[in-house]
Amino acid sequence: MESRKSLQFLVLSICVTLVLVVTWVHLPSSPNKVFLDCTLSSAWCSSKNRIQSSTKPNNLIKKPQQSSSTTQHQQHDSDVPHHPLDPLTVQEFNKIHAILAAHPFFESVSKYTLNTVSLEEPDKELVIKWKRGDPLPARKASVTAMVKGKSHFLTVDLNTDEVSIDEKSSVVSGYPTMAMEEMVGVLDVPLKSIEFNRTISQRGVNMGDLACLPISSGWYDLPVEENRRLIKVQCYSKKDTVNFYMKPIEGLTVLVDMDKKEVVSISDNGRDIPIANGINTDYRYSVQKLNGDFRLFNPISLEQPKGPSFTVEDGHLVKWANWEFHLKADARAGIIISQVKVRDPETSELRSVMYKGFTSELFVPYMDPTDAWYFKTYMDAGEYGFGLQAMPLDPLNDCPRNAYYMDGVFAAADGTPYLQPNMICVFESYAGDIAWRHSECPITDLQVTEVRPKVNLVVRMAAAVANYDYIIDWEFQTDGLIRAKVGLSGILMVKGTTYDHMNQVPSQEYLYGTLLSENIIGVIHDHFITYYLDLDVDGSDNSFMKVNIKKQETLPGESPRKSYLKAVKNVAKTEKDAQIKLKLYDPSEFHMINPSKKTRVGNPVGYKVVPSGTAASLLDPEDPPQKRAAFTNNQIWVTPYNKSEQWAGGLFVYQSEGDDTLQVWSNRDRPIENKDIVLWYTLGFHHIPCQEDYPIMPTVSSSFDLKPVNFFERNPVLKLPPNFKDDLPVCKAHDSS
Amino acid sequence: MESRKSLQFLVLSICVTLVLVVTWVHLPSSPNKVFLDCTLSSAWCSSKNRIQSSTKPNNLIKKPQQSSSTTQHQQHDSDVPHHPLDPLTVQEFNKIHAILAAHPFFESVSKYTLNTVSLEEPDKELVIKWKRGDPLPARKASVTAMVKGKSHFLTVDLNTDEVSIDEKSSVVSGYPTMAMEEMVGVLDVPLKSIEFNRTISQRGVNMGDLACLPISSGWYDLPVEENRRLIKVQCYSKKDTVNFYMKPIEGLTVLVDMDKKEVVSISDNGRDIPIANGINTDYRYSVQKLNGDFRLFNPISLEQPKGPSFTVEDGHLVKWANWEFHLKADARAGIIISQVKVRDPETSELRSVMYKGFTSELFVPYMDPTDAWYFKTYMDAGEYGFGLQAMPLDPLNDCPRNAYYMDGVFAAADGTPYLQPNMICVFESYAGDIAWRHSECPITDLQVTEVRPKVNLVVRMAAAVANYDYIIDWEFQTDGLIRAKVGLSGILMVKGTTYDHMNQVPSQEYLYGTLLSENIIGVIHDHFITYYLDLDVDGSDNSFMKVNIKKQETLPGESPRKSYLKAVKNVAKTEKDAQIKLKLYDPSEFHMINPSKKTRVGNPVGYKVVPSGTAASLLDPEDPPQKRAAFTNNQIWVTPYNKSEQWAGGLFVYQSEGDDTLQVWSNRDRPIENKDIVLWYTLGFHHIPCQEDYPIMPTVSSSFDLKPVNFFERNPVLKLPPNFKDDLPVCKAHDSS
Repeated sequence: MESRKSLQFLVLSICVTLVLVVTWVHLPSSPNKVFLDCTLSSAWCSSKNRIQSSTKPNNLIKKPQQSSSTTQHQQHDSDVPHHPLDPLTVQEFNKIHAILAAHPFFESVSKYTLNTVSLEEPDKELVIKWKRGDPLPARKASVTAMVKGKSHFLTVDLNTDEVSIDEKSSVVSGYPTMAMEEMVGVLDVPLKSIEFNRTISQRGVNMGDLACLPISSGWYDLPVEENRRLIKVQCYSKKDTVNFYMKPIEGLTVLVDMDKKEVVSISDNGRDIPIANGINTDYRYSVQKLNGDFRLFNPISLEQPKGPSFTVEDGHLVKWANWEFHLKADARAGIIISQVKVRDPETSELRSVMYKGFTSELFVPYMDPTDAWYFKTYMDAGEYGFGLQAMPLDPLNDCPRNAYYMDGVFAAADGTPYLQPNMICVFESYAGDIAWRHSECPITDLQVTEVRPKVNLVVRMAAAVANYDYIIDWEFQTDGLIRAKVGLSGILMVKGTTYDHMNQVPSQEYLYGTLLSENIIGVIHDHFITYYLDLDVDGSDNSFMKVNIKKQETLPGESPRKSYLKAVKNVAKTEKDAQIKLKLYDPSEFHMINPSKKTRVGNPVGYKVVPSGTAASLLDPEDPPQKRAAFTNNQIWVTPYNKSEQWAGGLFVYQSEGDDTLQVWSNRDRPIENKDIVLWYTLGFHHIPCQEDYPIMPTVSSSFDLKPVNFFERNPVLKLPPNFKDDLPVCKAHDSS
Repeated sequence: MESRKSLQFLVLSICVTLVLVVTWVHLPSSPNKVFLDCTLSSAWCSSKNRIQSSTKPNNLIKKPQQSSSTTQHQQHDSDVPHHPLDPLTVQEFNKIHAILAAHPFFESVSKYTLNTVSLEEPDKELVIKWKRGDPLPARKASVTAMVKGKSHFLTVDLNTDEVSIDEKSSVVSGYPTMAMEEMVGVLDVPLKSIEFNRTISQRGVNMGDLACLPISSGWYDLPVEENRRLIKVQCYSKKDTVNFYMKPIEGLTVLVDMDKKEVVSISDNGRDIPIANGINTDYRYSVQKLNGDFRLFNPISLEQPKGPSFTVEDGHLVKWANWEFHLKADARAGIIISQVKVRDPETSELRSVMYKGFTSELFVPYMDPTDAWYFKTYMDAGEYGFGLQAMPLDPLNDCPRNAYYMDGVFAAADGTPYLQPNMICVFESYAGDIAWRHSECPITDLQVTEVRPKVNLVVRMAAAVANYDYIIDWEFQTDGLIRAKVGLSGILMVKGTTYDHMNQVPSQEYLYGTLLSENIIGVIHDHFITYYLDLDVDGSDNSFMKVNIKKQETLPGESPRKSYLKAVKNVAKTEKDAQIKLKLYDPSEFHMINPSKKTRVGNPVGYKVVPSGTAASLLDPEDPPQKRAAFTNNQIWVTPYNKSEQWAGGLFVYQSEGDDTLQVWSNRDRPIENKDIVLWYTLGFHHIPCQEDYPIMPTVSSSFDLKPVNFFERNPVLKLPPNFKDDLPVCKAHDSS
């Protein structure tokens, strides 16, 4: 028996070794050098597009279809900053890399990770004062780094080479955004485990078909979470489909120590659950069997034969119609829009609307409390990097013809810069909509029909945080309205089940979602996207005014009417006055006004935030995920401007304990009247999956608006011309040309 | 003294006579013949486009820009119906006219008005059974008429010439939709009054500058309202601007008996309020002084060099991509969409989604209880005719190039048909949006980017109910979603005021709105648009299921999570179970399911109604306007199908007392489970005007969706192809061609 056991062990060991060797080749490599080099590993590794100062960027991505007049996609290695808010350049990244590598703090350690390296923006007053032609304020970088399992926050002065270390981690919980190399680097850790290999084999999955995901494990105040950075790895089979998400190896969760790269524990509860067959889940065009029944369209295209009407100066300053703003890519936020100004048609003056706007954090809790699912409560910006996950846009499909594409330049985990090509696009959109119109009718006996077409400018990125795709749009309209829109597409996170028909499910059993296909449940979840909106309406000092719409009963004899609605205005004094939950039956408008600036007839100038369809978080406020994502406790918040309060879930969101959130800041209840204040808006979605979401989801969108309210003296697009036939292009089909 | 008084009276009389003579020429004529003839009066009079069987339609409206391949704008006098739901044709209108004129009921009276004449649709079962090639079911017309101050409802059988009279007016209150000639015909009634002429003159308004509006007076249970049809006339000065709405003669209200055409009383309370100067309120392009500062766009256009991808068969059957539906113009509803079907990509079968959908009623209460404003609580469909007010669309501006235009053919007050040209447009839209997408990211080491552009089909009309313009869109998406969208533009209804700056307004005074310009207040109001949605999901018998999203607390020890959200399904048994008020903190999905039809894995097939931004009516339920518009008491209702329950405010809405509304029907609490049922959805807007709305409003939009939920086995647009460069057209600027 003894020898038999030994033999079994030997065979098993050989198998495991073999598997490990094979996997080593097939999975992304696990770099263990100080400076990562993944040129030999993943084709997608961020180092692939690493920029060497002596060589051209290794950018294999096809170039967008451009009108020949648009010059872009310059070589980024010679970029220089032109504006105080311009992102760090290749040369600056290289300099930071050199400064840090030589710094005693890093010199003394054998291994560290630079999790984020980004511009430390100059003080707001400096930026506002700065004019083109002025020298730039001192260039600085903010760096978050993991050294010996601890979070660090550093500032590097690029002029003086000085490094200052701010030990925020002694004050707040959590870890920095994962570097892409860290996410990839944990995926082969489970393979070190015999138990893991055995169960994979027992479930009939070939190691070559294994696809695993690094799933942020949240924080649940458990002993295992203390003093270590954890991640959970769950795996799928990619046999016969590129859409491995539809073939989960259900119930198998490997808890990994992210820094030590070792397995902490394995939970394996789904051995009786078959892996779904994945038939017809591959969504790629190349594998579709097209039949004649699906009618295709004649080509339809947004055409601008004279080219687009916007310009991008110095790589970042977008000018279009009556708008001007600074646009850049950011590894954590994705898109950052700054110094948004709109031209007043009465005075021709450019007037400030918003100093800075971006998606500050996301919260995506899944609604299944069982072992393999309860922890799925993603905070995609702070944990994964919303910009890091924004893959190159597909020209003609992600954005129409004549789009302008902007690259991201980020730092790899070792600090060397790399290129995220075509990460953001900018384009003009015309959907056939109407900016304003009026016809006179027979009643008035006037023959008037005046209609103006509506053309917008869209700034877009698409972040694919593993399975889900978030399409983030900032839409600028000529009437002064800014629409922030989120589209959800991509692939559901699904759960394996033994059921292949609803009639097998006992009536008392709750599935936590919808049976989408045989052995596949789409688990219910929410999405919340919290926007940081530093509105500066005609200057920094603003007030937040709630215009409450209230039923007013008339007095007896006052009117044949019993009631009417009255607008009751209340200016918020402190932060708690501005913690707002939206109510259909107690409605309000939410104005950001400048109390010192009035229109000709005496209304304070303002912008209002206009919610549209949305969802609120209904989790228990004391539930650990909700505590960490307490920024979703209200739809609207207003805080005094504070340079350090930009990330709604805190600076270090990974495994954070909820001690550094917007809720914590706002509860200080600081004065916010006639001050430099920031408005936060959370857009939400409840998602009960349905079969139409399988195997890939049609886009679902929602949005909110920032809209001028007594900001202009009158309709700012009164002078917009209509379309005349001779304005429009002459087109012919490509195959007839 | 006596003679002096006589002289004064003589002079005044001469003045009044002179004024009356002048006005007679300038205002629309007041026809008093049985068969109206307004060929000599208003250029806009519905008779202008009157169709004579011997002549071509007198259609002065310019034709839309068409691709030469599209044939349309046939001569309507030879139209024949091809489908059971096709609207009445010119020949049918003429026949009805002849039948009624010869009928004893009308022969015996000297004067009557046909308020509405429209197809009496055949029974639903007949329509559903009918197939192309079958003979049409009997053609019938529904007629509402005013005879001797009483409402009548008649049915005319076009095959048998039989007329049946259904005395609904003995059961329900109210009067039919006003005929256009009635609205116009009351405008000169005030001129018969010396008092009116005197006050107009005293306010310094030249009779030649007078512009008056017929304002439905509502119903307030006042003795004056008993047994007569009333309307209120309010006037404006059109001196120096086409935008007379901005120059109200405030406080002057003339109560007119609509049938007797006489003044009942005059209320004149605003003599101290100056008429606003109207400077810069003319919005027409031709009068704008353009300056170089307003940047214009390079041309941008939706181009389809191979033409649109939809067809309109037999004038009404629209086929596009996977959709097919019947489309027609209606004088009361505007657009009616019927027999909406979508093709299932798995089976190629056309599947029923909705039997009929249209805007059933509007409710627009103004929030000012004072004498000249309290009654402004419009119900635009039932009072004014939403389709009657839908003026010709402006090609290239109201709808893009390649749009198809559909005419309306309606009956004038005397029953003769007339043409409403270009009333509805149909076009394909591409805004640069994304139907679905997914990119794989570095984590998964797969190189996949698949993106599909989103092309929609839009059906549009624009109804200008005097000042306001409603842009009504039905948007069909290839993923099975139908979006019903309402855009509000046009001109505010404003109130004159003595104030020209907010600092003159005492702090305790409430203005009922916003000071928009000197002497002009934009009064707060709501808009509600109630849709009739006879969803027939894969057949007529459906159930309404509320999927309530509820917080579920976990049991101690069950999970590290304290809570999650659970979907709790409840099928409505009776109507009261389906009277729904939307709640952000008690959210639900609202499914219309077919309990007899399941997907492969056993989910009932369904469509859900998905609200977006909306507003609820907050008026007192016992307030007379709210009682009349009780259909706005909930956002969602479900009623059993009943052919006579189509108009949410009742058949006779004008001066109705709220005894025939959706609320009354629904309160019967009839069973609605697994029955042919109708869903009603109300889209609402609170509108606190702002200066940007002056002098013409930038479009504000909101919408709701009808969305497949387990209707398809899987994503129905999986096989949609991406755009390839060679698909797209080759264009050049018009001036370079």
